[in-house]
Amino acid sequence: MPEITFQPGGKSVVVPEGTLLLDAAAKAGILIDTPCGAQGRCGRCVVRVESGEVSHRENPHLSPKQLQEGWVLACVARIKNDLVLGVPPRKEREKVVEERAGTKTAASVQCDWPRYPALRQVFLELPPPSLDDAFTDVDRLQRVLSKEHSIERLYIELPLLQRLAQTLRQSKWQVTLTLDMYDRGGEARLIDIQPGKTEGPLFAIAVDIGTTNVVMDLVDIRSGRTIERVSTRNKQISRGEDVISRIVYSEKGGLAELQRLVVEAINDLLKELSQKHNFDTKQVYQMVTASNTTMTHLFLGLPPRSIREEPYVPTASRFPVVTAAQVGVNINPLASIYCLPAVAAYVGGDITSGVLASCLFKTDKLTLFMDVGTNGEIVLGTSEWMTTCACSAGPAFEGAGVRNGMRATTGAIEEVRINSKTLEPTLEVIGGVLPRGICGSGMITALAEMLVTGVIDRSGRIKAPYVQEVMGESSRVRRGDHGAEYVLAWAAESDSGQDIVLTEVDINNLIRTKAAIYAGMAVMARNLGINLTDIEEVLIGGAFGQHIDIEEAIQIGLLPDLPWERFKFLGNTSLWGAYNVLLSKHARDKVEEIAGKMTYMELITDNSFMNELMAAMFLPHTDIDQFPTVKAALEKVGAAKTS
Amino acid sequence: MPEITFQPGGKSVVVPEGTLLLDAAAKAGILIDTPCGAQGRCGRCVVRVESGEVSHRENPHLSPKQLQEGWVLACVARIKNDLVLGVPPRKEREKVVEERAGTKTAASVQCDWPRYPALRQVFLELPPPSLDDAFTDVDRLQRVLSKEHSIERLYIELPLLQRLAQTLRQSKWQVTLTLDMYDRGGEARLIDIQPGKTEGPLFAIAVDIGTTNVVMDLVDIRSGRTIERVSTRNKQISRGEDVISRIVYSEKGGLAELQRLVVEAINDLLKELSQKHNFDTKQVYQMVTASNTTMTHLFLGLPPRSIREEPYVPTASRFPVVTAAQVGVNINPLASIYCLPAVAAYVGGDITSGVLASCLFKTDKLTLFMDVGTNGEIVLGTSEWMTTCACSAGPAFEGAGVRNGMRATTGAIEEVRINSKTLEPTLEVIGGVLPRGICGSGMITALAEMLVTGVIDRSGRIKAPYVQEVMGESSRVRRGDHGAEYVLAWAAESDSGQDIVLTEVDINNLIRTKAAIYAGMAVMARNLGINLTDIEEVLIGGAFGQHIDIEEAIQIGLLPDLPWERFKFLGNTSLWGAYNVLLSKHARDKVEEIAGKMTYMELITDNSFMNELMAAMFLPHTDIDQFPTVKAALEKVGAAKTS
Repeated sequence: MPEITFQPGGKSVVVPEGTLLLDAAAKAGILIDTPCGAQGRCGRCVVRVESGEVSHRENPHLSPKQLQEGWVLACVARIKNDLVLGVPPRKEREKVVEERAGTKTAASVQCDWPRYPALRQVFLELPPPSLDDAFTDVDRLQRVLSKEHSIERLYIELPLLQRLAQTLRQSKWQVTLTLDMYDRGGEARLIDIQPGKTEGPLFAIAVDIGTTNVVMDLVDIRSGRTIERVSTRNKQISRGEDVISRIVYSEKGGLAELQRLVVEAINDLLKELSQKHNFDTKQVYQMVTASNTTMTHLFLGLPPRSIREEPYVPTASRFPVVTAAQVGVNINPLASIYCLPAVAAYVGGDITSGVLASCLFKTDKLTLFMDVGTNGEIVLGTSEWMTTCACSAGPAFEGAGVRNGMRATTGAIEEVRINSKTLEPTLEVIGGVLPRGICGSGMITALAEMLVTGVIDRSGRIKAPYVQEVMGESSRVRRGDHGAEYVLAWAAESDSGQDIVLTEVDINNLIRTKAAIYAGMAVMARNLGINLTDIEEVLIGGAFGQHIDIEEAIQIGLLPDLPWERFKFLGNTSLWGAYNVLLSKHARDKVEEIAGKMTYMELITDNSFMNELMAAMFLPHTDIDQFPTVKAALEKVGAAKTS
Repeated sequence: MPEITFQPGGKSVVVPEGTLLLDAAAKAGILIDTPCGAQGRCGRCVVRVESGEVSHRENPHLSPKQLQEGWVLACVARIKNDLVLGVPPRKEREKVVEERAGTKTAASVQCDWPRYPALRQVFLELPPPSLDDAFTDVDRLQRVLSKEHSIERLYIELPLLQRLAQTLRQSKWQVTLTLDMYDRGGEARLIDIQPGKTEGPLFAIAVDIGTTNVVMDLVDIRSGRTIERVSTRNKQISRGEDVISRIVYSEKGGLAELQRLVVEAINDLLKELSQKHNFDTKQVYQMVTASNTTMTHLFLGLPPRSIREEPYVPTASRFPVVTAAQVGVNINPLASIYCLPAVAAYVGGDITSGVLASCLFKTDKLTLFMDVGTNGEIVLGTSEWMTTCACSAGPAFEGAGVRNGMRATTGAIEEVRINSKTLEPTLEVIGGVLPRGICGSGMITALAEMLVTGVIDRSGRIKAPYVQEVMGESSRVRRGDHGAEYVLAWAAESDSGQDIVLTEVDINNLIRTKAAIYAGMAVMARNLGINLTDIEEVLIGGAFGQHIDIEEAIQIGLLPDLPWERFKFLGNTSLWGAYNVLLSKHARDKVEEIAGKMTYMELITDNSFMNELMAAMFLPHTDIDQFPTVKAALEKVGAAKTS
């Protein structure tokens, strides 16, 4: 019989050929967690074959590279002959799970924009005027700019013109000009003039103004590097959690207040950065923002009312370049602020920015870009064409409409594994603390696990009798205020000292949300004569998207059933696009082109949307044949359960 | 002997052939004024030959047309046979004098700019949005602007964008846009949006910001007509009379105050106009200004210090278009203000405006344009080339440095005639009141009369013994605090109850002033290889120029000795140019081209200027052969005196 040695430690046991590695480990007294109940689903039981051979190596949770390195799942692989197995500590095993197929970390997409920032700083040494060379101060600047920098037209803002003469003379005709090359057609706009040669970073900021969070990159235009990323709450939250409630608040006279609140959040971040890196915020000379259409309207003080009223027409989708002074952002008052263009009321600058950052616009592959936030915006296309829609998915994944829902911060349950045999859950909590609630990624995994383990049926109803049968006295399913509910964490295990549950109402909300997104994709694909299975690449943007587990998102029918390698998580594409625009005129041209090129599809006027939505209100879908891998998994589970 | 009948009245006398008409009139008891002492100089004794013939009809004071009509000077023409003479009342005779050769009234120069105002108002009826036509508000505007008005790019100022949605909806999608077509390259800039269809005038203002006076034309862009011209003092006068003293004041911390003062003067005029014509000044949507370089600097709040310090380099000669809000002018805050471009520190936008208004830029004739103000700016050229200089003539003609000098307002002596025989003066006073002082045109005529009648010699010294000999006891020449002086008006005849005099110091100042202007012309002509006599046309701009008597200006050597018909008075060319720019993009393009094309000649660095200046410090000039008609006149007078 083969002998199995476990490292580190060197313990060894002898077991029959064909024994599961998990069982061999147990025999050696080594405990390996199996949150899914040793079903090969969660991937947490990875171990590494250091020598010898095993059978049943393959598992979708392992990438080819990981297999190559010797990783196997202990709950799946079986012993063939003598083995040396590495059992790394839990932390390391989790890392392996996260690296699985490379999908859970943001893919690095590089569009390789040629460096061509709108912001430039040039040092000029001017010849002092004389009777033989009596050019005006402005013409003197212009002459050298033209000769040494090929800048033919200079627009000087009045406040700078008013101090030009003195600055030139006091600095002995040696000055550094800060120029915006790009806001007034072919004219370079002078934003600042400083005596002598200015060294050090040339600051600009890229800002993702989210409904919930404001995230800011401090960028050094000279080096092209992001110095630091900081984020804070969008202070508007105190006046409404989602865009609709803010629009309503603005209609009641709150527009100016909302404008002020988001600017305050931005100014707080600026203060934080300036204190940390010891600079004056007046030295920040440009700002590019990406945000949804409502947030852009509120930031610029544009009334958003018509965004929520049929026919959903915003004031603008392309916004005038404004100066910081005009909106109150505490950077250089003459610095320009460029808001990335939107496409429609519910497809904003965050999406055009995402398309820019994702390089969708230059791919040959049929690509789906999605940003799963409150709305669920979708773009389908190639470099040749792009169609977009917004699914009005609702904010369930952001915690609203879910009893113990919360955002993905410390204390949020971000992953749930349910043991198929015991139906007991294992939780991952952000920050490793006692749980306070459950966030979007936690909800997806909970739903998928409940489905696969038979806690809920495909319509989302909790199968109370079955759970009762398995769990007996300690059943986690019970009747609560909102009907049946599953207890994720008992009061004693929770931060608040109260049970954390997922109710049938919560589950219905989540199903509605995922159904809206899937229906949007389905309608768009059909209208374009495309099969969802034809999609060659799925790019998932947005902060939330980054934490989705693909397998489980497919299992609940949020994502189409495609091979996992077609999915890529891109992280905060909204901010990444804004950063690109700071660094390259070409990126800015491109995002304007993208906004102009995208065809907006209004789902509300599409008769088939409601049908698709109803059909998608099942797990994963009424037509399970659209999800063959899920069908297979459920059949296997069903077979296992009945065996 | 011929019989002479005088009309109206029908009195007749019989006198010998060859009798002067003046003497015949005296015999008939009809008094005709002869302020110059019947020397044929002043032209005041015009009468009209209704039938019969006279000899000695010609006189330079009569135009060919006037001769044709029968006008003759009574002090020159002699009787040949029976005559009927019309002796019109004095008023009518003066009109004949003023019409002489058409020179004293502003010539009507028409460059015939095609109407193409930067300011436009368009009425739009927009289709309301629907689910099938969900263009944004901005795109909806843009679509109709493009289709109906071929306006392809619209820039909407933020404050207007902020109220766009409401205005469109409240007005049921029928709005009037006010657009500035010309400030942002190819973009139309939205300045105002009003519900419904706006009727009535579309107001703009052209403003001549003079050192002394601010003159404003209220223009209706729709009809192209000037509704009214108003003027007021430039309130900066309280802080210095001339540009240099204002620059000095600005250096002592007074820049902001000077800026505010000139804007107050402009706002006062706006208030006057708005009350009179019953409109809101916020309905004035554009402003174009013409002013000298210092005034433009002060208006825009640019420090003018370097204008007065060698090498006389202003901050700018082309100025950024600003909004009314930026400088505090009380028109629509988003209205643009365009300041006409300058050429150099002492050749300002008033001169480029003058060149534009005078059509010099398109003439084939060698033309001299001059604006005889404080500085005496000169432009010499044709459509092919233009050279300009400033003569730093000083403000003597504006009343400064002349003991009883004053501006050309009520009470100013504007014309002086001295009787060759009695040396008694006859005065014309503005407003027909008792004199308070003497203005520029009065000084020129006084100087010329004193020269021609022998009160002063060609160096400007008063010939006291000669005057004493003629006038005896009642001599108007005496010694005063400032040396010798000639009494123009005795205390009893003056408003203040004090004598009004012209002193030798005054005369020296005036000679220095006229010498600077003439020297400027002479140096410029010589540097260009041109003879002053080659000049085919002399265009005289500026308010003051309008009141100059050509003959006398030549007699003192202020103007070159050219045939009178080559001179044209154009009036306020500075304002006229600004008006053209309001009405035509082409005029605006042209004035920019003119400013770029004009070659500035710095007289201070020209070695020959001081020599020319010294040579011109004589009446009319050291080299009298440059003034043949004056030489002849003086010889005739000298001959008369010694006869």
